[in-house]
Amino acid sequence: MTGLPERVTAAVLIIGDEILSGRTQDTNLRDIAKYLGVHGVDLAEARTVPDVHEEIIAALDALRARYDYVVTTGGIGPTHDDITADAVAAAFGVELYEHPDIIAMMTTRWGSELNAARRRMARVPVGGELVKNPVQGPPGFTIGNVFVLAGVPQIMRGMLEDVGPRLKGGAVTVSRTVRVEGSGEGAIAAPLEAVAKAHPAMSLGSYPFFGADGYGANLVLRGRDPDELAATVEELMAALRADGVQNVREVAVST
Amino acid sequence: MTGLPERVTAAVLIIGDEILSGRTQDTNLRDIAKYLGVHGVDLAEARTVPDVHEEIIAALDALRARYDYVVTTGGIGPTHDDITADAVAAAFGVELYEHPDIIAMMTTRWGSELNAARRRMARVPVGGELVKNPVQGPPGFTIGNVFVLAGVPQIMRGMLEDVGPRLKGGAVTVSRTVRVEGSGEGAIAAPLEAVAKAHPAMSLGSYPFFGADGYGANLVLRGRDPDELAATVEELMAALRADGVQNVREVAVST
Repeated sequence: MTGLPERVTAAVLIIGDEILSGRTQDTNLRDIAKYLGVHGVDLAEARTVPDVHEEIIAALDALRARYDYVVTTGGIGPTHDDITADAVAAAFGVELYEHPDIIAMMTTRWGSELNAARRRMARVPVGGELVKNPVQGPPGFTIGNVFVLAGVPQIMRGMLEDVGPRLKGGAVTVSRTVRVEGSGEGAIAAPLEAVAKAHPAMSLGSYPFFGADGYGANLVLRGRDPDELAATVEELMAALRADGVQNVREVAVST
Repeated sequence: MTGLPERVTAAVLIIGDEILSGRTQDTNLRDIAKYLGVHGVDLAEARTVPDVHEEIIAALDALRARYDYVVTTGGIGPTHDDITADAVAAAFGVELYEHPDIIAMMTTRWGSELNAARRRMARVPVGGELVKNPVQGPPGFTIGNVFVLAGVPQIMRGMLEDVGPRLKGGAVTVSRTVRVEGSGEGAIAAPLEAVAKAHPAMSLGSYPFFGADGYGANLVLRGRDPDELAATVEELMAALRADGVQNVREVAVST
Protein backbone atom coordinates (compact mmCIF):
# COMPACT_ATOMS: atom_id res chain seq x y z
CA MET A 1 0.00 0.00 0.00
CA THR A 2 3.08 2.24 -0.19
CA GLY A 3 2.36 5.68 -1.60
CA LEU A 4 -1.40 5.49 -1.23
CA PRO A 5 -2.82 8.36 0.83
CA GLU A 6 -4.64 7.67 4.05
CA ARG A 7 -8.37 7.20 4.02
CA VAL A 8 -10.39 10.38 3.46
CA THR A 9 -13.90 10.31 4.88
CA ALA A 10 -17.18 12.15 4.59
CA ALA A 11 -20.64 12.12 6.09
CA VAL A 12 -23.97 13.05 4.52
CA LEU A 13 -26.56 14.99 6.50
CA ILE A 14 -30.02 14.82 4.95
CA ILE A 15 -32.29 17.56 6.28
CA GLY A 16 -36.03 17.37 5.88
CA ASP A 17 -39.28 16.23 7.45
CA GLU A 18 -40.39 14.84 4.09
CA ILE A 19 -37.78 12.07 4.23
CA LEU A 20 -38.62 11.08 7.82
CA SER A 21 -42.38 11.08 7.16
CA GLY A 22 -41.88 8.67 4.28
CA ARG A 23 -43.39 11.11 1.83
CA THR A 24 -40.22 11.41 -0.24
CA GLN A 25 -37.80 8.67 -1.26
CA ASP A 26 -34.28 10.00 -0.78
CA THR A 27 -31.89 9.34 -3.66
CA ASN A 28 -29.27 11.96 -2.79
CA LEU A 29 -27.37 9.69 -0.41
CA ARG A 30 -26.58 7.23 -3.14
CA ASP A 31 -25.66 9.90 -5.68
CA ILE A 32 -23.33 11.60 -3.22
CA ALA A 33 -21.77 8.29 -2.15
CA LYS A 34 -20.92 7.41 -5.74
CA TYR A 35 -19.65 10.89 -6.53
CA LEU A 36 -17.41 11.01 -3.46
CA GLY A 37 -16.11 7.50 -4.19
CA VAL A 38 -14.88 8.57 -7.61
CA HIS A 39 -13.00 11.40 -5.90
CA GLY A 40 -11.31 9.12 -3.38
CA VAL A 41 -13.56 10.06 -0.47
CA ASP A 42 -15.31 7.30 1.50
CA LEU A 43 -18.78 7.98 2.78
CA ALA A 44 -18.52 6.78 6.38
CA GLU A 45 -21.89 7.71 7.88
CA ALA A 46 -25.20 9.34 7.01
CA ARG A 47 -27.86 10.93 9.15
CA THR A 48 -31.34 12.18 8.40
CA VAL A 49 -32.78 14.86 10.69
CA PRO A 50 -36.01 16.88 10.71
CA ASP A 51 -36.37 20.60 9.94
CA VAL A 52 -35.53 21.50 13.55
CA HIS A 53 -32.81 24.06 14.28
CA GLU A 54 -31.22 22.31 17.27
CA GLU A 55 -31.29 18.89 15.59
CA ILE A 56 -29.49 20.16 12.51
CA ILE A 57 -26.82 21.87 14.61
CA ALA A 58 -26.24 18.84 16.84
CA ALA A 59 -25.88 16.44 13.90
CA LEU A 60 -23.69 18.85 11.95
CA ASP A 61 -21.36 19.41 14.89
CA ALA A 62 -21.03 15.66 15.52
CA LEU A 63 -20.28 14.91 11.89
CA ARG A 64 -17.97 17.80 11.00
CA ALA A 65 -15.80 17.08 14.03
CA ARG A 66 -15.38 13.46 13.08
CA TYR A 67 -15.08 13.30 9.28
CA ASP A 68 -12.99 15.15 6.72
CA TYR A 69 -16.06 16.46 4.90
CA VAL A 70 -19.79 16.84 5.46
CA VAL A 71 -22.31 17.25 2.65
CA THR A 72 -25.80 18.45 3.60
CA THR A 73 -28.87 18.32 1.39
CA GLY A 74 -32.16 20.13 1.80
CA GLY A 75 -33.58 23.15 3.56
CA ILE A 76 -32.06 25.96 1.50
CA GLY A 77 -35.22 27.18 -0.27
CA PRO A 78 -37.21 30.36 0.43
CA THR A 79 -39.94 29.03 2.74
CA HIS A 80 -40.16 29.19 6.53
CA ASP A 81 -39.15 25.54 6.91
CA ASP A 82 -35.87 26.15 5.04
CA ILE A 83 -33.58 26.74 8.00
CA THR A 84 -30.36 25.01 6.98
CA ALA A 85 -28.37 28.21 6.42
CA ASP A 86 -29.39 29.51 9.86
CA ALA A 87 -28.35 26.24 11.52
CA VAL A 88 -25.02 26.03 9.69
CA ALA A 89 -24.18 29.63 10.62
CA ALA A 90 -25.12 28.93 14.23
CA ALA A 91 -22.97 25.79 14.28
CA PHE A 92 -19.97 27.80 13.07
CA GLY A 93 -20.79 30.72 15.39
CA VAL A 94 -21.04 33.25 12.57
CA GLU A 95 -23.74 35.52 11.13
CA LEU A 96 -25.57 35.22 7.85
CA TYR A 97 -25.34 38.02 5.30
CA GLU A 98 -26.88 38.62 1.92
CA HIS A 99 -24.25 37.71 -0.64
CA PRO A 100 -23.99 40.51 -3.22
CA ASP A 101 -23.41 38.13 -6.14
CA ILE A 102 -26.62 36.25 -5.35
CA ILE A 103 -28.59 39.46 -4.89
CA ALA A 104 -27.27 40.64 -8.27
CA MET A 105 -28.36 37.36 -9.91
CA MET A 106 -31.75 37.55 -8.26
CA THR A 107 -32.28 41.16 -9.25
CA THR A 108 -31.61 40.24 -12.87
CA ARG A 109 -34.01 37.30 -12.60
CA TRP A 110 -36.80 38.81 -10.50
CA GLY A 111 -36.57 42.58 -10.73
CA SER A 112 -39.31 44.10 -8.64
CA GLU A 113 -40.56 40.61 -7.69
CA LEU A 114 -37.47 40.04 -5.54
CA ASN A 115 -39.39 39.67 -2.29
CA ALA A 116 -38.27 38.85 1.25
CA ALA A 117 -38.76 35.10 0.80
CA ARG A 118 -36.50 34.99 -2.25
CA ARG A 119 -33.88 37.13 -0.48
CA ARG A 120 -33.69 34.41 2.19
CA MET A 121 -31.93 32.27 -0.40
CA ALA A 122 -29.18 34.90 -0.80
CA ARG A 123 -28.04 34.42 2.81
CA VAL A 124 -24.60 32.88 3.30
CA PRO A 125 -22.59 32.49 6.51
CA VAL A 126 -19.73 34.95 6.97
CA GLY A 127 -16.60 33.16 5.77
CA GLY A 128 -18.50 30.90 3.41
CA GLU A 129 -17.97 30.51 -0.34
CA LEU A 130 -20.56 29.86 -3.01
CA VAL A 131 -21.11 26.47 -4.65
CA LYS A 132 -22.29 26.93 -8.24
CA ASN A 133 -25.79 25.90 -9.21
CA PRO A 134 -25.81 25.12 -12.94
CA VAL A 135 -29.46 23.99 -12.94
CA GLN A 136 -31.90 26.50 -11.51
CA GLY A 137 -32.05 28.99 -8.67
CA PRO A 138 -29.45 30.33 -6.27
CA PRO A 139 -26.14 28.62 -5.42
CA GLY A 140 -25.26 26.48 -2.43
CA PHE A 141 -22.34 27.33 -0.20
CA THR A 142 -19.42 25.85 1.67
CA ILE A 143 -17.92 26.82 5.02
CA GLY A 144 -15.15 24.99 6.83
CA ASN A 145 -15.41 21.32 5.81
CA VAL A 146 -19.16 21.51 5.16
CA PHE A 147 -20.88 21.70 1.77
CA VAL A 148 -24.49 22.88 1.84
CA LEU A 149 -26.46 21.69 -1.20
CA ALA A 150 -30.06 21.73 -2.36
CA GLY A 151 -32.44 18.86 -1.66
CA VAL A 152 -34.01 18.64 -5.12
CA PRO A 153 -32.01 15.81 -6.75
CA GLN A 154 -31.42 17.47 -10.13
CA ILE A 155 -30.09 20.61 -8.46
CA MET A 156 -28.09 18.67 -5.88
CA ARG A 157 -26.34 16.71 -8.62
CA GLY A 158 -25.55 19.90 -10.48
CA MET A 159 -24.04 21.48 -7.37
CA LEU A 160 -21.92 18.38 -6.71
CA GLU A 161 -19.94 19.19 -9.85
CA ASP A 162 -18.58 22.25 -8.07
CA VAL A 163 -17.78 20.23 -4.94
CA GLY A 164 -15.49 17.65 -6.54
CA PRO A 165 -12.67 20.05 -7.50
CA ARG A 166 -12.48 21.23 -3.88
CA LEU A 167 -12.07 17.76 -2.39
CA LYS A 168 -8.67 16.45 -1.40
CA GLY A 169 -9.36 12.76 -1.83
CA GLY A 170 -7.31 9.70 -1.09
CA ALA A 171 -6.77 6.66 -3.26
CA VAL A 172 -9.97 5.71 -5.04
CA THR A 173 -11.67 2.60 -3.74
CA VAL A 174 -12.30 0.17 -6.58
CA SER A 175 -15.06 -2.40 -6.49
CA ARG A 176 -15.50 -5.72 -8.31
CA THR A 177 -18.45 -8.07 -8.08
CA VAL A 178 -18.58 -11.86 -8.14
CA ARG A 179 -22.09 -13.19 -8.73
CA VAL A 180 -23.24 -16.58 -7.49
CA GLU A 181 -26.53 -17.93 -8.81
CA GLY A 182 -28.49 -20.82 -7.34
CA SER A 183 -26.69 -20.90 -4.00
CA GLY A 184 -27.77 -19.14 -0.82
CA GLU A 185 -25.44 -17.19 1.42
CA GLY A 186 -25.32 -20.13 3.82
CA ALA A 187 -23.47 -22.18 1.21
CA ILE A 188 -20.86 -19.55 0.41
CA ALA A 189 -20.17 -18.02 3.82
CA ALA A 190 -17.23 -20.26 4.73
CA PRO A 191 -15.04 -19.74 1.63
CA LEU A 192 -16.00 -16.05 1.61
CA GLU A 193 -14.86 -15.61 5.19
CA ALA A 194 -11.60 -17.48 4.60
CA VAL A 195 -10.68 -15.20 1.70
CA ALA A 196 -11.77 -12.10 3.65
CA LYS A 197 -9.48 -13.08 6.53
CA ALA A 198 -6.55 -13.58 4.15
CA HIS A 199 -7.01 -10.03 2.78
CA PRO A 200 -7.79 -7.69 5.69
CA ALA A 201 -7.13 -4.60 3.53
CA MET A 202 -9.93 -5.64 1.19
CA SER A 203 -13.62 -5.32 2.08
CA LEU A 204 -15.77 -8.31 1.10
CA GLY A 205 -19.53 -7.99 1.35
CA SER A 206 -22.28 -10.43 0.47
CA TYR A 207 -25.61 -9.14 -0.87
CA PRO A 208 -28.23 -11.81 -1.35
CA PHE A 209 -30.96 -11.56 -3.94
CA PHE A 210 -34.00 -13.60 -4.69
CA GLY A 211 -36.99 -13.13 -6.90
CA ALA A 212 -38.77 -14.45 -9.95
CA ASP A 213 -35.46 -14.95 -11.77
CA GLY A 214 -33.91 -17.10 -9.07
CA TYR A 215 -31.73 -16.52 -6.06
CA GLY A 216 -28.09 -16.12 -5.12
CA ALA A 217 -25.70 -13.46 -3.90
CA ASN A 218 -23.54 -10.68 -5.24
CA LEU A 219 -20.17 -10.74 -3.52
CA VAL A 220 -18.70 -7.26 -3.66
CA LEU A 221 -14.96 -6.86 -3.17
CA ARG A 222 -13.63 -3.36 -2.50
CA GLY A 223 -10.17 -1.99 -1.92
CA ARG A 224 -7.67 0.71 -2.80
CA ASP A 225 -4.98 -1.55 -4.30
CA PRO A 226 -6.19 -2.79 -7.70
CA ASP A 227 -3.57 -5.56 -7.84
CA GLU A 228 -4.51 -7.04 -4.49
CA LEU A 229 -8.17 -6.64 -5.44
CA ALA A 230 -7.63 -8.64 -8.65
CA ALA A 231 -5.82 -11.38 -6.71
CA THR A 232 -8.62 -11.48 -4.14
CA VAL A 233 -11.25 -11.88 -6.86
CA GLU A 234 -9.33 -14.84 -8.32
CA GLU A 235 -8.85 -16.47 -4.90
CA LEU A 236 -12.51 -16.04 -4.03
CA MET A 237 -13.77 -17.62 -7.25
CA ALA A 238 -11.33 -20.51 -6.83
CA ALA A 239 -12.31 -21.03 -3.17
CA LEU A 240 -16.02 -21.04 -4.00
CA ARG A 241 -15.56 -23.56 -6.83
CA ALA A 242 -13.31 -25.74 -4.65
CA ASP A 243 -16.15 -25.79 -2.12
CA GLY A 244 -18.57 -27.09 -4.74
CA VAL A 245 -20.37 -23.80 -5.39
CA GLN A 246 -21.62 -23.62 -8.98
CA ASN A 247 -22.43 -20.71 -11.31
CA VAL A 248 -19.74 -18.34 -10.06
CA ARG A 249 -18.67 -15.49 -12.33
CA GLU A 250 -17.47 -11.92 -12.23
CA VAL A 251 -20.19 -9.62 -13.49
CA ALA A 252 -19.09 -6.01 -13.37
CA VAL A 253 -16.37 -3.57 -12.50
CA SER A 254 -17.43 -0.27 -11.04
CA THR A 255 -16.21 2.21 -8.51
CA MET B 1 -55.45 18.59 21.70
CA THR B 2 -57.14 17.18 24.83
CA GLY B 3 -57.12 13.40 25.01
CA LEU B 4 -54.48 12.88 22.37
CA PRO B 5 -51.50 10.87 23.63
CA GLU B 6 -48.08 12.42 23.67
CA ARG B 7 -45.79 12.03 20.71
CA VAL B 8 -44.26 8.58 20.30
CA THR B 9 -40.95 8.52 18.43
CA ALA B 10 -38.69 6.08 16.65
CA ALA B 11 -35.34 6.04 14.89
CA VAL B 12 -34.16 3.85 12.02
CA LEU B 13 -30.62 2.47 11.98
CA ILE B 14 -29.55 1.24 8.55
CA ILE B 15 -26.55 -1.07 8.77
CA GLY B 16 -24.48 -1.84 5.72
CA ASP B 17 -21.45 -0.85 3.66
CA GLU B 18 -23.50 -1.32 0.49
CA ILE B 19 -25.64 1.73 1.29
CA LEU B 20 -22.67 3.96 2.12
CA SER B 21 -20.73 2.90 -0.97
CA GLY B 22 -23.67 3.88 -3.15
CA ARG B 23 -23.97 0.37 -4.51
CA THR B 24 -27.49 -0.13 -3.13
CA GLN B 25 -30.36 2.35 -3.06
CA ASP B 26 -32.01 2.12 0.36
CA THR B 27 -35.80 1.96 0.32
CA ASN B 28 -36.32 0.57 3.82
CA LEU B 29 -36.27 3.98 5.50
CA ARG B 30 -39.30 5.14 3.57
CA ASP B 31 -41.21 1.88 4.07
CA ILE B 32 -40.56 1.93 7.82
CA ALA B 33 -41.46 5.62 8.09
CA LYS B 34 -44.83 5.04 6.46
CA TYR B 35 -45.51 1.89 8.47
CA LEU B 36 -44.68 3.57 11.77
CA GLY B 37 -46.77 6.60 10.86
CA VAL B 38 -49.87 4.47 10.43
CA HIS B 39 -49.23 3.10 13.92
CA GLY B 40 -48.95 6.55 15.50
CA VAL B 41 -45.16 6.50 15.78
CA ASP B 42 -43.16 9.41 14.31
CA LEU B 43 -39.83 8.65 12.73
CA ALA B 44 -37.60 11.30 14.29
CA GLU B 45 -34.13 10.43 13.01
CA ALA B 46 -32.30 7.94 10.83
CA ARG B 47 -28.67 6.91 10.66
CA THR B 48 -26.71 4.78 8.25
CA VAL B 49 -23.55 3.10 9.56
CA PRO B 50 -21.03 0.66 8.06
CA ASP B 51 -20.60 -3.01 9.00
CA VAL B 52 -18.29 -2.06 11.89
CA HIS B 53 -18.99 -3.44 15.38
CA GLU B 54 -18.20 -0.29 17.36
CA GLU B 55 -20.07 1.98 14.95
CA ILE B 56 -23.24 -0.08 15.21
CA ILE B 57 -23.07 -0.13 19.01
CA ALA B 58 -22.44 3.61 19.30
CA ALA B 59 -25.33 4.53 17.00
CA LEU B 60 -27.67 2.01 18.62
CA ASP B 61 -26.92 3.28 22.11
CA ALA B 62 -27.43 6.91 21.09
CA LEU B 63 -30.74 6.18 19.40
CA ARG B 64 -32.28 3.73 21.87
CA ALA B 65 -31.62 6.11 24.76
CA ARG B 66 -33.33 8.98 23.00
CA TYR B 67 -36.34 7.54 21.16
CA ASP B 68 -39.18 5.24 22.14
CA TYR B 69 -38.27 2.66 19.49
CA VAL B 70 -35.37 1.81 17.21
CA VAL B 71 -35.72 -0.29 14.07
CA THR B 72 -32.53 -1.66 12.52
CA THR B 73 -32.19 -3.13 9.04
CA GLY B 74 -29.40 -5.24 7.62
CA GLY B 75 -26.56 -7.42 8.79
CA ILE B 76 -28.47 -10.47 10.04
CA GLY B 77 -27.49 -12.95 7.32
CA PRO B 78 -25.02 -15.85 7.56
CA THR B 79 -21.84 -14.26 6.22
CA HIS B 80 -18.88 -12.82 8.12
CA ASP B 81 -20.00 -9.22 7.49
CA ASP B 82 -23.36 -9.90 9.19
CA ILE B 83 -22.57 -8.65 12.68
CA THR B 84 -25.74 -6.91 13.76
CA ALA B 85 -26.78 -9.55 16.31
CA ASP B 86 -23.32 -9.43 17.92
CA ALA B 87 -23.45 -5.63 18.14
CA VAL B 88 -26.98 -5.53 19.56
CA ALA B 89 -26.10 -8.11 22.20
CA ALA B 90 -22.99 -6.15 23.12
CA ALA B 91 -24.99 -2.91 23.36
CA PHE B 92 -27.39 -4.57 25.80
CA GLY B 93 -24.57 -6.33 27.66
CA VAL B 94 -25.95 -9.82 27.08
CA GLU B 95 -24.78 -12.97 25.34
CA LEU B 96 -26.08 -14.51 22.12
CA TYR B 97 -27.51 -18.01 22.17
CA GLU B 98 -28.87 -20.33 19.50
CA HIS B 99 -32.64 -20.07 19.72
CA PRO B 100 -34.11 -23.61 19.76
CA ASP B 101 -37.12 -22.64 17.64
CA ILE B 102 -34.88 -21.31 14.89
CA ILE B 103 -32.59 -24.33 15.06
CA ALA B 104 -35.68 -26.57 14.75
CA MET B 105 -36.88 -24.61 11.69
CA MET B 106 -33.44 -24.76 10.14
CA THR B 107 -33.06 -28.47 10.77
CA THR B 108 -36.34 -29.09 8.96
CA ARG B 109 -35.23 -26.88 6.09
CA TRP B 110 -31.57 -27.86 5.77
CA GLY B 111 -31.10 -31.26 7.43
CA SER B 112 -27.45 -32.25 7.18
CA GLU B 113 -26.70 -29.02 5.27
CA LEU B 114 -27.23 -26.97 8.43
CA ASN B 115 -23.68 -25.65 8.55
CA ALA B 116 -21.97 -23.19 10.89
CA ALA B 117 -22.76 -20.19 8.68
CA ARG B 118 -26.49 -20.94 8.69
CA ARG B 119 -26.43 -21.49 12.46
CA ARG B 120 -25.15 -17.92 12.85
CA MET B 121 -28.65 -16.79 11.86
CA ALA B 122 -30.17 -18.69 14.80
CA ARG B 123 -28.35 -16.49 17.33
CA VAL B 124 -30.54 -14.21 19.45
CA PRO B 125 -29.55 -12.07 22.45
CA VAL B 126 -30.54 -13.44 25.85
CA GLY B 127 -33.82 -11.76 26.76
CA GLY B 128 -34.80 -11.17 23.14
CA GLU B 129 -37.97 -12.32 21.39
CA LEU B 130 -38.40 -13.44 17.81
CA VAL B 131 -39.95 -11.28 15.09
CA LYS B 132 -41.73 -13.46 12.54
CA ASN B 133 -40.41 -13.71 9.01
CA PRO B 134 -43.29 -14.64 6.69
CA VAL B 135 -41.17 -14.40 3.54
CA GLN B 136 -38.02 -16.50 3.55
CA GLY B 137 -35.32 -17.49 6.01
CA PRO B 138 -34.96 -17.11 9.76
CA PRO B 139 -36.83 -14.56 11.92
CA GLY B 140 -35.64 -11.21 13.20
CA PHE B 141 -35.71 -10.38 16.89
CA THR B 142 -36.52 -7.65 19.38
CA ILE B 143 -34.84 -6.76 22.65
CA GLY B 144 -35.69 -3.80 24.84
CA ASN B 145 -37.01 -1.06 22.55
CA VAL B 146 -35.04 -2.30 19.53
CA PHE B 147 -36.38 -4.28 16.56
CA VAL B 148 -33.75 -6.05 14.46
CA LEU B 149 -34.96 -6.70 10.91
CA ALA B 150 -33.48 -7.99 7.67
CA GLY B 151 -32.02 -5.66 5.06
CA VAL B 152 -33.59 -7.29 1.99
CA PRO B 153 -36.66 -5.10 1.39
CA GLN B 154 -39.19 -7.89 0.76
CA ILE B 155 -38.17 -9.65 3.97
CA MET B 156 -37.97 -6.42 5.95
CA ARG B 157 -41.53 -5.50 4.97
CA GLY B 158 -42.74 -8.95 5.96
CA MET B 159 -41.10 -8.68 9.36
CA LEU B 160 -42.62 -5.24 9.94
CA GLU B 161 -46.05 -6.88 10.10
CA ASP B 162 -44.97 -8.53 13.34
CA VAL B 163 -43.62 -5.24 14.71
CA GLY B 164 -46.81 -3.18 14.44
CA PRO B 165 -48.83 -5.11 17.04
CA ARG B 166 -46.05 -4.55 19.59
CA LEU B 167 -45.95 -0.77 19.17
CA LYS B 168 -47.68 1.50 21.64
CA GLY B 169 -48.33 4.41 19.32
CA GLY B 170 -49.72 7.86 19.90
CA ALA B 171 -52.29 9.72 17.86
CA VAL B 172 -51.74 9.13 14.17
CA THR B 173 -50.33 12.06 12.26
CA VAL B 174 -52.50 12.85 9.27
CA SER B 175 -51.19 14.58 6.18
CA ARG B 176 -52.90 16.61 3.46
CA THR B 177 -51.33 18.15 0.40
CA VAL B 178 -52.07 21.42 -1.36
CA ARG B 179 -50.53 21.60 -4.82
CA VAL B 180 -49.57 24.88 -6.47
CA GLU B 181 -48.70 24.80 -10.16
CA GLY B 182 -46.95 27.56 -12.10
CA SER B 183 -45.69 29.45 -9.04
CA GLY B 184 -42.28 29.05 -7.43
CA GLU B 185 -41.73 28.81 -3.72
CA GLY B 186 -40.65 32.45 -3.62
CA ALA B 187 -44.19 33.50 -4.53
CA ILE B 188 -45.92 31.39 -1.88
CA ALA B 189 -43.55 31.65 1.07
CA ALA B 190 -45.24 34.64 2.73
CA PRO B 191 -48.83 33.29 2.95
CA LEU B 192 -47.46 29.84 3.82
CA GLU B 193 -45.46 31.23 6.72
CA ALA B 194 -48.39 33.31 7.99
CA VAL B 195 -50.65 30.24 8.15
CA ALA B 196 -47.88 28.14 9.71
CA LYS B 197 -47.43 30.71 12.46
CA ALA B 198 -51.17 30.75 13.16
CA HIS B 199 -51.16 26.95 13.65
CA PRO B 200 -48.02 25.98 15.59
CA ALA B 201 -49.40 22.49 16.29
CA MET B 202 -49.52 21.79 12.56
CA SER B 203 -46.42 21.12 10.45
CA LEU B 204 -46.37 22.87 7.06
CA GLY B 205 -43.69 21.91 4.57
CA SER B 206 -43.06 23.09 1.04
CA TYR B 207 -41.63 20.69 -1.55
CA PRO B 208 -40.86 22.30 -4.89
CA PHE B 209 -40.95 20.37 -8.12
CA PHE B 210 -39.95 21.22 -11.64
CA GLY B 211 -39.57 19.23 -14.80
CA ALA B 212 -40.93 18.72 -18.27
CA ASP B 213 -44.51 19.02 -16.99
CA GLY B 214 -44.00 22.40 -15.37
CA TYR B 215 -43.06 23.66 -11.94
CA GLY B 216 -44.61 24.49 -8.61
CA ALA B 217 -44.69 23.17 -5.07
CA ASN B 218 -46.50 20.60 -2.99
CA LEU B 219 -47.43 22.10 0.37
CA VAL B 220 -47.75 19.29 2.88
CA LEU B 221 -49.74 19.93 6.06
CA ARG B 222 -49.37 17.43 8.89
CA GLY B 223 -50.90 17.19 12.33
CA ARG B 224 -52.60 14.97 14.88
CA ASP B 225 -55.89 16.87 15.10
CA PRO B 226 -57.87 16.24 11.89
CA ASP B 227 -60.25 19.17 12.53
CA GLU B 228 -57.48 21.71 12.95
CA LEU B 229 -55.73 20.19 9.94
CA ALA B 230 -58.85 20.68 7.80
CA ALA B 231 -59.16 24.28 8.97
CA THR B 232 -55.49 24.89 8.21
CA VAL B 233 -55.87 23.52 4.69
CA GLU B 234 -58.79 25.89 4.05
CA GLU B 235 -56.94 28.88 5.49
CA LEU B 236 -53.85 28.13 3.44
CA MET B 237 -55.72 27.86 0.16
CA ALA B 238 -57.61 31.09 0.92
CA ALA B 239 -54.40 32.91 1.87
CA LEU B 240 -52.61 31.79 -1.28
CA ARG B 241 -55.50 32.88 -3.51
CA ALA B 242 -55.82 36.19 -1.66
CA ASP B 243 -52.13 36.74 -2.45
CA GLY B 244 -52.78 36.25 -6.15
CA VAL B 245 -51.38 32.72 -6.41
CA GLN B 246 -53.18 30.74 -9.14
CA ASN B 247 -53.76 27.02 -9.67
CA VAL B 248 -54.11 26.06 -6.01
CA ARG B 249 -55.87 22.81 -5.17
CA GLU B 250 -55.82 19.96 -2.71
CA VAL B 251 -54.51 16.84 -4.40
CA ALA B 252 -54.39 13.96 -1.98
CA VAL B 253 -55.00 12.77 1.53
CA SER B 254 -52.55 10.30 2.96
CA THR B 255 -51.02 9.43 6.28
